[in-house]
Amino acid sequence: MSKLLIVGTVAFDAIETPFGKTDKILGGAGTYIGLSASNFNQVDAGLVSVVGNDFPQEYLDLLHEKNINTKGIEVVKDGKTFFWSGKYHTNMNKRDTLITELNVLEHFNPVVPKDYKDAEIVMLGNLHPLVQNAALEQLTKKPKLVVLDTMDFWMNIALDDLRMVLKKVDVITINDEEAQQLSGEYSLVKAAKIIHEMGPKYVVIKKGEHGALLFHKEQMFFAPALPLADVFDPTGAGDTFAGGFTGYLAQQEELTFEAMKNAVIWGSNLASFTVEEFGVKRIAEVTTKEVEDRLEKFKNLTNFSL
Amino acid sequence: MSKLLIVGTVAFDAIETPFGKTDKILGGAGTYIGLSASNFNQVDAGLVSVVGNDFPQEYLDLLHEKNINTKGIEVVKDGKTFFWSGKYHTNMNKRDTLITELNVLEHFNPVVPKDYKDAEIVMLGNLHPLVQNAALEQLTKKPKLVVLDTMDFWMNIALDDLRMVLKKVDVITINDEEAQQLSGEYSLVKAAKIIHEMGPKYVVIKKGEHGALLFHKEQMFFAPALPLADVFDPTGAGDTFAGGFTGYLAQQEELTFEAMKNAVIWGSNLASFTVEEFGVKRIAEVTTKEVEDRLEKFKNLTNFSL
Repeated sequence: MSKLLIVGTVAFDAIETPFGKTDKILGGAGTYIGLSASNFNQVDAGLVSVVGNDFPQEYLDLLHEKNINTKGIEVVKDGKTFFWSGKYHTNMNKRDTLITELNVLEHFNPVVPKDYKDAEIVMLGNLHPLVQNAALEQLTKKPKLVVLDTMDFWMNIALDDLRMVLKKVDVITINDEEAQQLSGEYSLVKAAKIIHEMGPKYVVIKKGEHGALLFHKEQMFFAPALPLADVFDPTGAGDTFAGGFTGYLAQQEELTFEAMKNAVIWGSNLASFTVEEFGVKRIAEVTTKEVEDRLEKFKNLTNFSL
Repeated sequence: MSKLLIVGTVAFDAIETPFGKTDKILGGAGTYIGLSASNFNQVDAGLVSVVGNDFPQEYLDLLHEKNINTKGIEVVKDGKTFFWSGKYHTNMNKRDTLITELNVLEHFNPVVPKDYKDAEIVMLGNLHPLVQNAALEQLTKKPKLVVLDTMDFWMNIALDDLRMVLKKVDVITINDEEAQQLSGEYSLVKAAKIIHEMGPKYVVIKKGEHGALLFHKEQMFFAPALPLADVFDPTGAGDTFAGGFTGYLAQQEELTFEAMKNAVIWGSNLASFTVEEFGVKRIAEVTTKEVEDRLEKFKNLTNFSL
């Protein structure tokens, strides 16, 4: 069993899309990453996060059922769980944030449980770069791979901190507009080169429904998103991708470029389920057979013989 | 030698992008389709179009050099060549049309030369659907494949005509927003199904820098665009794609789904050159070696072994 340390939010989300809306449901980057990574049964995933005492036991039970170690989830007495609410446009690549209540997240001080301080793979979900760094600082053994996800918000308010922590990571996952913002380059090829120089040896640029690009030195790989008849809710797709990416890698002996390519495909595969229902519903219920069948679709989607 | 009949505009373009601007240069869908298809040396391509007497001999010479038969290009005495001017935004997927002078195109009555009335493959470039239909009506033998390109403009002003001609075509190439407009569906998977029912057995949805999708019954294939460090001018990329698509198919014995997939890759490959320079410069000068080398890049871009 390989250990995967996940640091990320566990939250309440309220989501509106052109296809419906939800009340407060289970959300958070750490939640999606964990549920996605739980599809790899040779991985021992531990989640570091924080919630309030309003967080339902049934949600913690769900994580346990999926063999996600929740020892690292601090429950703050008299605290309220982080709450995010957003609304998607017809073009589901765009969304407006309606409400952000940081609550217990405001003073989140991640504590990595002893058992995960020697994790082989570390997945730092989208959080303040100093929180991401605080988790890294607690490791007792250099991980095989550190993966960091971030967003434009941190580039706007904590760019120096982000640059500091980027020097310590092997892989960054970021969306196309964020890659352009971070690098100052419109071309994603040029943007990736500049982000390489900031630290990460691998740059993964997520393009939502347009797939994902993996850059490593002069090498480049592209994984399409699976075109779907119905996309209900894109929330968590990027985090599901990250969970599939790191979960797959946690099962590999060697982290070659070939392994990274496969990890991008696995991330895309699992993300394609998340968007089919609101919240975590689909990714929490997906079966091994469904995932394997869809992997075949991914193979057929880009396979040609010229 | 297989015959490829191309019906499309030959024009002057004036283009502005974030990287520069041009005076009136050679443009037009038929021009790009022809130059692109000329990369397949077992194809006898004939171009049906119209220009004014202001059209320079050197441009016609260029087409001849590329072995494009120009017998079908009518030169209207005292007529002026179709002129289009456009400006691209930083996001090169969007452009504004600055000038459209139809000139000789306004009364374009395509005349298919006798030698091409039995063409195996017919590529109908973006034109009024009745002009596309007029060319089809002149054929003396049912082609192996009729491919039609169109745009939102014709959906707005000549939808019934477009629907009429769509019943006669095997393949439609269309961009993502146009597919959504034509079908009334946001999901491209659903849009393709609806467009199938309008006639075309194959639906190719072009997504610019995000690649192209091929749909056929329940089958689906995706070809990425090659991520490039520098994109100077997207003008003609879709037409170059169409030229590569039909040029490749004109060399094939059997038009299977596998052949269609390869054709989409060839279209994407050739289009990736067009955007590297203004106008037709790059596609008119590209060498066999360059095209073959880039084909390897396309293979590596999506190839994985899971």
